[in-house]
Amino acid sequence: MKTSATDPSTKKAKEAKLWGGRFEEGVTDAVERFTESISFDKALYKQDIMGSRAHASMLAHQGLISVSDRDSILQGLDNIERRIEDGEFVWRTDREDVHMNIEAALTDLIGEPAKKLHTARSRNDQVLTDFRLWCRDAIDNIVARIEHLQVALVTLAMKNENLIVPGYTHLQRAQPILLQHLLLAYVEQLDRDAGRLLDCRQRLNFCPLGACALAGTGLPIDRFMTSHDLGFNAPMRNSIDAVSDRDFVLEFLSANSITAIHLSRLGEEWVLWASEEFGFLTPSDSVSTGSSIMPQKKNPDPMELVRGKSARVVGDLVTLLVLCKGLPHAYNRDLQEDKEPTFDSTKTIIGMLEVCAEFAQNITFNREKIKKALPAGHLDATTLADYLVKKGIPFRTSHDIVGKSVALCVSKNCQLQDLSLDELRSVNPVFDEDVYEFLGVENAVKKFCSYGSTGSECVAEQLDFWVTKLQINTAGHK
Amino acid sequence: MKTSATDPSTKKAKEAKLWGGRFEEGVTDAVERFTESISFDKALYKQDIMGSRAHASMLAHQGLISVSDRDSILQGLDNIERRIEDGEFVWRTDREDVHMNIEAALTDLIGEPAKKLHTARSRNDQVLTDFRLWCRDAIDNIVARIEHLQVALVTLAMKNENLIVPGYTHLQRAQPILLQHLLLAYVEQLDRDAGRLLDCRQRLNFCPLGACALAGTGLPIDRFMTSHDLGFNAPMRNSIDAVSDRDFVLEFLSANSITAIHLSRLGEEWVLWASEEFGFLTPSDSVSTGSSIMPQKKNPDPMELVRGKSARVVGDLVTLLVLCKGLPHAYNRDLQEDKEPTFDSTKTIIGMLEVCAEFAQNITFNREKIKKALPAGHLDATTLADYLVKKGIPFRTSHDIVGKSVALCVSKNCQLQDLSLDELRSVNPVFDEDVYEFLGVENAVKKFCSYGSTGSECVAEQLDFWVTKLQINTAGHK
Amino acid sequence: MKTSATDPSTKKAKEAKLWGGRFEEGVTDAVERFTESISFDKALYKQDIMGSRAHASMLAHQGLISVSDRDSILQGLDNIERRIEDGEFVWRTDREDVHMNIEAALTDLIGEPAKKLHTARSRNDQVLTDFRLWCRDAIDNIVARIEHLQVALVTLAMKNENLIVPGYTHLQRAQPILLQHLLLAYVEQLDRDAGRLLDCRQRLNFCPLGACALAGTGLPIDRFMTSHDLGFNAPMRNSIDAVSDRDFVLEFLSANSITAIHLSRLGEEWVLWASEEFGFLTPSDSVSTGSSIMPQKKNPDPMELVRGKSARVVGDLVTLLVLCKGLPHAYNRDLQEDKEPTFDSTKTIIGMLEVCAEFAQNITFNREKIKKALPAGHLDATTLADYLVKKGIPFRTSHDIVGKSVALCVSKNCQLQDLSLDELRSVNPVFDEDVYEFLGVENAVKKFCSYGSTGSECVAEQLDFWVTKLQINTAGHK
Amino acid sequence: MKTSATDPSTKKAKEAKLWGGRFEEGVTDAVERFTESISFDKALYKQDIMGSRAHASMLAHQGLISVSDRDSILQGLDNIERRIEDGEFVWRTDREDVHMNIEAALTDLIGEPAKKLHTARSRNDQVLTDFRLWCRDAIDNIVARIEHLQVALVTLAMKNENLIVPGYTHLQRAQPILLQHLLLAYVEQLDRDAGRLLDCRQRLNFCPLGACALAGTGLPIDRFMTSHDLGFNAPMRNSIDAVSDRDFVLEFLSANSITAIHLSRLGEEWVLWASEEFGFLTPSDSVSTGSSIMPQKKNPDPMELVRGKSARVVGDLVTLLVLCKGLPHAYNRDLQEDKEPTFDSTKTIIGMLEVCAEFAQNITFNREKIKKALPAGHLDATTLADYLVKKGIPFRTSHDIVGKSVALCVSKNCQLQDLSLDELRSVNPVFDEDVYEFLGVENAVKKFCSYGSTGSECVAEQLDFWVTKLQINTAGHK
Repeated sequence: MKTSATDPSTKKAKEAKLWGGRFEEGVTDAVERFTESISFDKALYKQDIMGSRAHASMLAHQGLISVSDRDSILQGLDNIERRIEDGEFVWRTDREDVHMNIEAALTDLIGEPAKKLHTARSRNDQVLTDFRLWCRDAIDNIVARIEHLQVALVTLAMKNENLIVPGYTHLQRAQPILLQHLLLAYVEQLDRDAGRLLDCRQRLNFCPLGACALAGTGLPIDRFMTSHDLGFNAPMRNSIDAVSDRDFVLEFLSANSITAIHLSRLGEEWVLWASEEFGFLTPSDSVSTGSSIMPQKKNPDPMELVRGKSARVVGDLVTLLVLCKGLPHAYNRDLQEDKEPTFDSTKTIIGMLEVCAEFAQNITFNREKIKKALPAGHLDATTLADYLVKKGIPFRTSHDIVGKSVALCVSKNCQLQDLSLDELRSVNPVFDEDVYEFLGVENAVKKFCSYGSTGSECVAEQLDFWVTKLQINTAGHK
Repeated sequence: MKTSATDPSTKKAKEAKLWGGRFEEGVTDAVERFTESISFDKALYKQDIMGSRAHASMLAHQGLISVSDRDSILQGLDNIERRIEDGEFVWRTDREDVHMNIEAALTDLIGEPAKKLHTARSRNDQVLTDFRLWCRDAIDNIVARIEHLQVALVTLAMKNENLIVPGYTHLQRAQPILLQHLLLAYVEQLDRDAGRLLDCRQRLNFCPLGACALAGTGLPIDRFMTSHDLGFNAPMRNSIDAVSDRDFVLEFLSANSITAIHLSRLGEEWVLWASEEFGFLTPSDSVSTGSSIMPQKKNPDPMELVRGKSARVVGDLVTLLVLCKGLPHAYNRDLQEDKEPTFDSTKTIIGMLEVCAEFAQNITFNREKIKKALPAGHLDATTLADYLVKKGIPFRTSHDIVGKSVALCVSKNCQLQDLSLDELRSVNPVFDEDVYEFLGVENAVKKFCSYGSTGSECVAEQLDFWVTKLQINTAGHK
Repeated sequence: MKTSATDPSTKKAKEAKLWGGRFEEGVTDAVERFTESISFDKALYKQDIMGSRAHASMLAHQGLISVSDRDSILQGLDNIERRIEDGEFVWRTDREDVHMNIEAALTDLIGEPAKKLHTARSRNDQVLTDFRLWCRDAIDNIVARIEHLQVALVTLAMKNENLIVPGYTHLQRAQPILLQHLLLAYVEQLDRDAGRLLDCRQRLNFCPLGACALAGTGLPIDRFMTSHDLGFNAPMRNSIDAVSDRDFVLEFLSANSITAIHLSRLGEEWVLWASEEFGFLTPSDSVSTGSSIMPQKKNPDPMELVRGKSARVVGDLVTLLVLCKGLPHAYNRDLQEDKEPTFDSTKTIIGMLEVCAEFAQNITFNREKIKKALPAGHLDATTLADYLVKKGIPFRTSHDIVGKSVALCVSKNCQLQDLSLDELRSVNPVFDEDVYEFLGVENAVKKFCSYGSTGSECVAEQLDFWVTKLQINTAGHK
Repeated sequence: MKTSATDPSTKKAKEAKLWGGRFEEGVTDAVERFTESISFDKALYKQDIMGSRAHASMLAHQGLISVSDRDSILQGLDNIERRIEDGEFVWRTDREDVHMNIEAALTDLIGEPAKKLHTARSRNDQVLTDFRLWCRDAIDNIVARIEHLQVALVTLAMKNENLIVPGYTHLQRAQPILLQHLLLAYVEQLDRDAGRLLDCRQRLNFCPLGACALAGTGLPIDRFMTSHDLGFNAPMRNSIDAVSDRDFVLEFLSANSITAIHLSRLGEEWVLWASEEFGFLTPSDSVSTGSSIMPQKKNPDPMELVRGKSARVVGDLVTLLVLCKGLPHAYNRDLQEDKEPTFDSTKTIIGMLEVCAEFAQNITFNREKIKKALPAGHLDATTLADYLVKKGIPFRTSHDIVGKSVALCVSKNCQLQDLSLDELRSVNPVFDEDVYEFLGVENAVKKFCSYGSTGSECVAEQLDFWVTKLQINTAGHK
């Protein structure tokens, strides 16, 4: 949508509010400014018009308005939608919100028939219809971006076969792993992220339209017809529930928060790996920035911001939880505040997903530097313990023997594979010549064989799974 | 579980840590106190023993330990479990956590075979196996309590047929509704709450056991066997993901937070309704408390605390989100902090659900007081607007006519049904004698007919739906 | 400031970034969009220009630039400031942020001398100087609004002398209080709110300028001069601290959150009191809104939104806390995200304070309705207990006697003052004729005499205190 | 305090509640369990007894109780306090809370006089008196620990003179800094942390005692006397404010949260520095732990947990903010939930501060490893830019020249100081032989001279400031 003009300073004699029948004076400017929502809820214009189309068609079908009124309304809505998208529509703060702006503009345009559009409808059910439609679209957009990032990560994995990197616990080197294995861990997490969003989509896709203010209506409307036209599963079963609850947004923003936390961890990892000290990856210039005073700097800013922006996604969720806490039924004006955090959370998470994918497409892993770093850290110690278990030593005893062997290395400032058989046997006589097949990171990785482990075949299986599931074209990689 | 003895002051010469091979001195007391988890993670003892049983059986099946070692282990675990449940087990802070306490006690008990139990296992995959099992049980417990509360609310609805109460928006009286309709709105919300938990249960029910420290193992274990024995859907596909992620707890605590927010709204509503000013309900003495200084007070404390305790459920979620933010892969010690918020959230939400159900079973709605209050607030105004729409007046015009009629009532300090036909016609000549069939709250409620509305038949349908779904015995109510 | 034009689509050949010396290609559009801050940090333009003026003057004073360079710079900055305020300045996304936009515009305008302005300065110390100045101004604005609301509440108290209302605990009527007493409770809270902000202002008012990137500079600058020119207490003592920490914003947003919670409670209270059921206050039309479907509604929306908007102030704080968690030293790009929550929190709290004041100026307390409601609730029960204590009965025994007397009232559906002396004596013979001086809410209020209590003289003293402290003109009220 | 016995299963015929006069049945077990607070508020026993002593003395002084009653009460309280501290006191859940437990035990002990203790007091003002006293003590404890950590950091700085380390921005090496300079940055932050707590202490140190339920009392008490005896600044001015507000805890937990965030950053930094990749520091065995499967691991767990536990301090604050949101005046039972988060926040922050200090006392910086790492990263680039500025080149041009010089280094895989003068002049002819005095990290550090910078003298000044302020004995270091 193009940015459209907003006119907050309409200072001519104020137009009467549509709900103003019994009111003798208008609200003060400060109150109008504080309570307006048009500055942000105009983002719902497409859904609002879609809902009004379905509603008008249903009203005509049920004989509540005439066919010609319906046609006027539909044409008027088309006209308004086009003007909004062309940036020609003037949003008026004195008309409060997106619903009143569109309805009043429709009245300006087509006159009498427009006054019938709000039959058997309240802003309460109208805004929730708009908002559920909006969230449904937002979820579809986010899920597409999640899949896009998964593809980027799998592709990055395919480009980096057989690259062994240190695996960390406590940020201490623990065991050697295949880089592919680590990248696929993120793909797993993103898959659950998408799953949560799709569960949320399924649960929110019920139609509140026709709940009216809170109690339904005495007019003979057909809620199943509007629900179906708008692509909902069914109308909501209880009209009070329909206008009161915001659990669907809480669930949506919770799902976004969890995704954001996942991405913050990816951000942290890649920022670490891009440091001089790790030096495992180099981002291309196209995803880095420099310093205004230190000319040599090349900063992985996008991933820092991914990490940082996770905070606002969490903050948005907290805003909504605090907002809903302790509100009695049914609609309360507080709930107007549900939209901005939702819009912000959606925009932010989409940006984060896009930038992560772009970063993944623009980094190089520094094979040489990683290879040089691998010997440090005794990454093969656990494999050595497995060797001893295979020799029949109870695990706890094996663990102790390896601990002492490592202590010997530390005192000699060498690696396990550098110890002579005699030295090893000085720790425990159980060691044999075959021990050297278990030492060194390449050997260590080779030994892994359990399902889901970092063993080459196990990782290849995982990779195949994702290539198939995500329908990735592997032509360029074989 | 009975409370079992904990002995934090074991001041004898310190036992060596199981990981202490290369360590020359023990940690300081302050560090031991700060890093210990036994004071809370002993709550996982049942799951930890269950996991060890499955692991030992698998090790034996794969030939990694002997059958007689397995049998010793299983008997030892039985013995330990019994001692824990009898409160005879001494938990030792110097043994750090539930895993080490049980393994060390097993070693004390059966000697050598115990040292083989940790073969092809790390505390990283062990604790996550325990924790997922614990969360699975917790979800089942919570879902049962949700259903119990739903039954209490539906039963309360059945006890209060035909009771019209004001429906509110902005805490201003809006339209008359059936109390049953309002109570069923909560039942709907609770249903989605249960749905979220069950989706979470489905997503978390995968087995991390065998992921070991992070990379899997080179020993020939069978992860499908342990996964199946422990009732998981399947082993987790990626060992790094298995030990790193905590999204399952984030999702669980998010679901609890949303439920808590729902209950905070019920709490607010019932606290309001129990006030002198509303006076719509009276709790029995069994769910009220008094004041230490004001002898006449009868306070609905349990529902205030339900509202208040929603805060800690939200706080627990925030703790976990902050905890996980920005952690690199794989396990970091920070993650030890995942348990207390989860335990607290679970305990709190269970208490909230129970107390709401108990409150629902112990309140009386004050029919007379409600009836006397109903005429105030022009609750039939919207029905009057529907009347005009049926007469062919466009809705916006109808709305305006009703607004002016209400203004007339306000000036005469009367209700709509008290206006004479002449007075109504002075506002607009369209009114006819039949208007009085639409005025007054009983008439107004009768007119509602849309799906999901507060009309008697619509509500009866909803009630039937829930009675059937929740399998409630209606014998006492018909 | 007028809204000024922003031009995000500058699609001509990209201008080189000022830090771009060693970079071979520009960032991608997605990265530019994701990392830009100009859309929000242009709000700092005034502080940025102020800081640059002080910096240029100091550079000239220290001989680091010439006097004529300084004069060019100062004139150029004047020109730019005027163009921004006239809405003629074009903000360019490709110039990233407010600092680069202004510096580049200055270079466009005055050429060579502009290139010297960034001598001995980094964006790191520059942005923190701007941001601390901005927060200082924001605090001054908020504190002024707090005082304005205090005046509105004290004035409202002065307009409502001798009005007794029920005091609540547990939302149950507890004791009679003077409305003035309750209103002054809010004034107390607001006073502490202002105190917190002023403490924060004092603590943040130290100057980071000259800390440069993080380590200071080797050029002979005078940090005391710039600090003094900008109204800071002193330059910050440690340059790394100066560019790394954001505790000053965390403290600021914490203070705002506490204020917001206070206002949410006022919002809740006035929403309750405006309900049909309480009916204690009526807002004027100028601070109420209506319903799109229920013509009789008159909703206290501004106070609902005050309650609701407290949520975003809390959410903003949480965003900042999550943002800063776990960041290593010194500057990280994440910290760019510190501004939007701060701007939002400030704007929101100002709106809340203004609207509360406006509401306070536009409500009427319904004396008659309140008076009619007062007898209910046994508000004089505690006073009766005091009576018994004065007769020498231990408090706990008195409490019990009063409890039984209330039970008698409940059974007879009457008030304590309606009980005959015989009836009272049937509970306990200690009662005398003088008991009736303690019964009834007017008598009850009269009896309060402790410091800070609701007794008329005690409240009058409080009122005097605030009238004097806030320098309120009482001419109209005497 | 020793842990004292709690007896939750007192199943004998229930004792009447002290507020139970008009109640016909006791609360259900579930409600009792849900609403009890004795399991945690017994932590207030010392403050509760202290408050009761002051209250009883005042009552006697005012003639409201006899001197002999007072003496009985004081002796009884002494007895109870001793029993609590000896672990002999039985806390009873059916007596609800710490106040009722102590008062009832006093009645068991001394009979009639105990019934007079609650004269002119309610649990509402009593609990707030206890809680403010508790928070005051907690703040004093935390501030002492902050100072202790400051001393540890300054001492660590003194032990590591002249150690140059890389300074980071974006986790990229930026400029060389003295380690002392970095450590002192934390000392600065902690100083502000203490300042916030002391401001909070000052603001909360007003006495609520005598506010009674909410309205004060009609009995002639002397609130100034109790306030003075308990070490408060003055009695609170408004009794409703006194029992309603919790802003003092919100401020306290906000201050703790900011401290926690500071410590999380220290935690992150030291975890990074302890990694193999950085390798800048080694913790001693006494503050490290090992792995159950990887024998070579030596993990900086305490600092990981410091980082992680910051999350619960933030979560505790959020709990309290959500708790207080939207509560009407005055006391609501929700507020019982204010204590556990406060206790948890206090305990956690104390543990974090202690462990950080202990870690600081038990780490060694690896001078050799750091020295070897320093040349990488072009840390002297900014100093080179300063050199050019001194030669009269405008800063932006200097920046560009240095950028190109760095690019030359990158292409030659060398450092700036390795470039020959000819090579430098190939970038720009302005370079002279004296440029080499500006290159290399030692030279770079030497050049810094601005106030607060990393120049040796500047840092020495800072160090002196703190040594003096913290009264550190420097004998061992000179």
